[in-house]
Amino acid sequence: MQFMPNSQALKALPARKSLDAVIAMSPENFAYASGAYISTVRLIRPRHAYAVIPAKGEPFNIVCSIEESLTRSESWIPDVRTYTEFAEVPVEVLARELKKQGLDKGKLGIDLDYLPASAYADLRAALPGAEFVNTTEIVSEIRAIKSDSEITLLETTTKQTHRAVLDAMAASKLGDSEADMAQKIANNIINYGADGTLFMAFASGARTAHPHTTAQPDVFPKPGEIIRFDVGGTYGAFASDFARTYSAGDPTAEQKQVHAALVRIQRETIEAMKPGVSSEDLFHLCKDLYPKHGLNFTMPHIGHSFGVELHENPMIRPGDKTPLKAGMIINIEPMVKHATGTYHTEDLVLVTESGYRLLTLGLAPEELPVIGQTIKY
Amino acid sequence: MQFMPNSQALKALPARKSLDAVIAMSPENFAYASGAYISTVRLIRPRHAYAVIPAKGEPFNIVCSIEESLTRSESWIPDVRTYTEFAEVPVEVLARELKKQGLDKGKLGIDLDYLPASAYADLRAALPGAEFVNTTEIVSEIRAIKSDSEITLLETTTKQTHRAVLDAMAASKLGDSEADMAQKIANNIINYGADGTLFMAFASGARTAHPHTTAQPDVFPKPGEIIRFDVGGTYGAFASDFARTYSAGDPTAEQKQVHAALVRIQRETIEAMKPGVSSEDLFHLCKDLYPKHGLNFTMPHIGHSFGVELHENPMIRPGDKTPLKAGMIINIEPMVKHATGTYHTEDLVLVTESGYRLLTLGLAPEELPVIGQTIKY
Repeated sequence: MQFMPNSQALKALPARKSLDAVIAMSPENFAYASGAYISTVRLIRPRHAYAVIPAKGEPFNIVCSIEESLTRSESWIPDVRTYTEFAEVPVEVLARELKKQGLDKGKLGIDLDYLPASAYADLRAALPGAEFVNTTEIVSEIRAIKSDSEITLLETTTKQTHRAVLDAMAASKLGDSEADMAQKIANNIINYGADGTLFMAFASGARTAHPHTTAQPDVFPKPGEIIRFDVGGTYGAFASDFARTYSAGDPTAEQKQVHAALVRIQRETIEAMKPGVSSEDLFHLCKDLYPKHGLNFTMPHIGHSFGVELHENPMIRPGDKTPLKAGMIINIEPMVKHATGTYHTEDLVLVTESGYRLLTLGLAPEELPVIGQTIKY
Repeated sequence: MQFMPNSQALKALPARKSLDAVIAMSPENFAYASGAYISTVRLIRPRHAYAVIPAKGEPFNIVCSIEESLTRSESWIPDVRTYTEFAEVPVEVLARELKKQGLDKGKLGIDLDYLPASAYADLRAALPGAEFVNTTEIVSEIRAIKSDSEITLLETTTKQTHRAVLDAMAASKLGDSEADMAQKIANNIINYGADGTLFMAFASGARTAHPHTTAQPDVFPKPGEIIRFDVGGTYGAFASDFARTYSAGDPTAEQKQVHAALVRIQRETIEAMKPGVSSEDLFHLCKDLYPKHGLNFTMPHIGHSFGVELHENPMIRPGDKTPLKAGMIINIEPMVKHATGTYHTEDLVLVTESGYRLLTLGLAPEELPVIGQTIKY
């Protein structure tokens, strides 16, 4: 799925930060800055790709020769230079191309939150006159405000994934294994438009205490057990991220109460979202709702910005003072560990000029859903 | 999928390399060394996990508190220490725990091919008396020789993926879009036992020139066009990796000839595999087979070791002098860019004491397969 990044903001970045160039090279910053999605940059870590944005002159990409044709077909940057894997060292080719542009004595921004320590040592050796600054976060700040096309894309993928889950759980029944149910979800995610799955965390009963475990073929959820999952599909550089809690049948009054309380906490948190509210204030607002609704709070964060990276900044956590702004897209995902199971619900929310807009089909019903049940929106 | 790493070799590593401890912390080295698969260590990069193996005393894990229960349930290392995400900085908690063990003045091995430059600077500031050495490769050397349980696991996942592809392509027909065919493959990969997809590269016609692009819903392969895909499922920390070439129908004599030549090159390369043959010699042997079979060679590598990492060492490339050893598991994947399309075939091979054993159901038939065709093994 191709998209056009905010190239104006990217091009203005070096001058705004008094840098001679910004080199976007974490898988997410490269995907965003170049507009080209090279899956192997994420899968095969030594296969670096660089989008170099100089303060003066035109930007250029440097990619592995294997990925040249894909980069040319997708990137808005026509200048694509290459290195040959194993015959050349990527950071040395980067150094060579920076020298060609007269940037070898410059002040250069690069993703030091991604560039491995060993490659950074090689880069400094190749460019002894350059000064390096960590620009991981300032590129991700640009990513935080989504364009209309990104909003459309993320709303589409999220609604597809939500529908995939609803249909899979309506088609599930007692006697199905965890793996049977997770397979239905994964098949639907793919058949409704994803090119693959990003993660498929799924557990039932006592195993719901593990937030990120996978469905087991020999575990058959029993009546009274809680089922919790957190799933996502891939759509080129983008993804979906969605969590829900179900009962395998015959939920107790206490289980129903916990689920209803969690959904109310989520709704009240989302209703507080609008430009100007700080990320950490939203975290504390959510945290304070837990005891009011009779639940224990233990989460390090209650949500995260979402785009080409699963957990982007701002994070809805203590210490993140970023104010919400129109165009941010944020997952709100309260969870509670309870004696009867771990409950979790997650929805994607767009911050608008006047407040917020939900990007899923709707919040989970307060009434704890049971497998086999059809939920209408 | 839990597994037991070669804990003897891991425990012997610090003394063997004159180190006070080895800290396995790349997603692959942590997954291997701990035996615990924490998917978010890969998906959420700042969420570090460390398996610390001291020269003296017992190993211990340090993980994000969210992942404590999963780590305790899967790792062979019972000592699991935690940090609270955002409230604590992972490398600072690592430094604190190393101090407790009297390792703060030691010579410490860590994955400098993974640890980001910024986190490495923080770690050195927290442990000014320690000396750091890059142990990414020496841990991956241990990973290169697979245990019987890893061999069984990788043979099972590879055969499942091969079967998934055969059934999906037999069920495909003219008029299907690329996305229709890729969806069938992905559904089968999941329904035959994977917990998700790792990658789904799929293209037809001129688009086969892009090695890693995804299937398009509005591209309908036409008779005479080549279809190339390279796909893999995830199975906990492990995966599958498998490529094939098909014709959409009515292949030309030239297309048939190119495909047959490529499969012959692959077979002759695999037949040369046995303990003692160096990785780069196998590369050159394969390279030299191309002109003998009338094909052009342009690949930077023709195969790679495979385990908890997609491209592991040894790589079958020039410059890698690692001799093949019994217990190595290697993908052999010749590809050729041709005027009539890009052709690719990939199979997983175990190096045995006496030579090799194929872990897929069998090599591709020399006769170029056509969509809708049933291939028997």
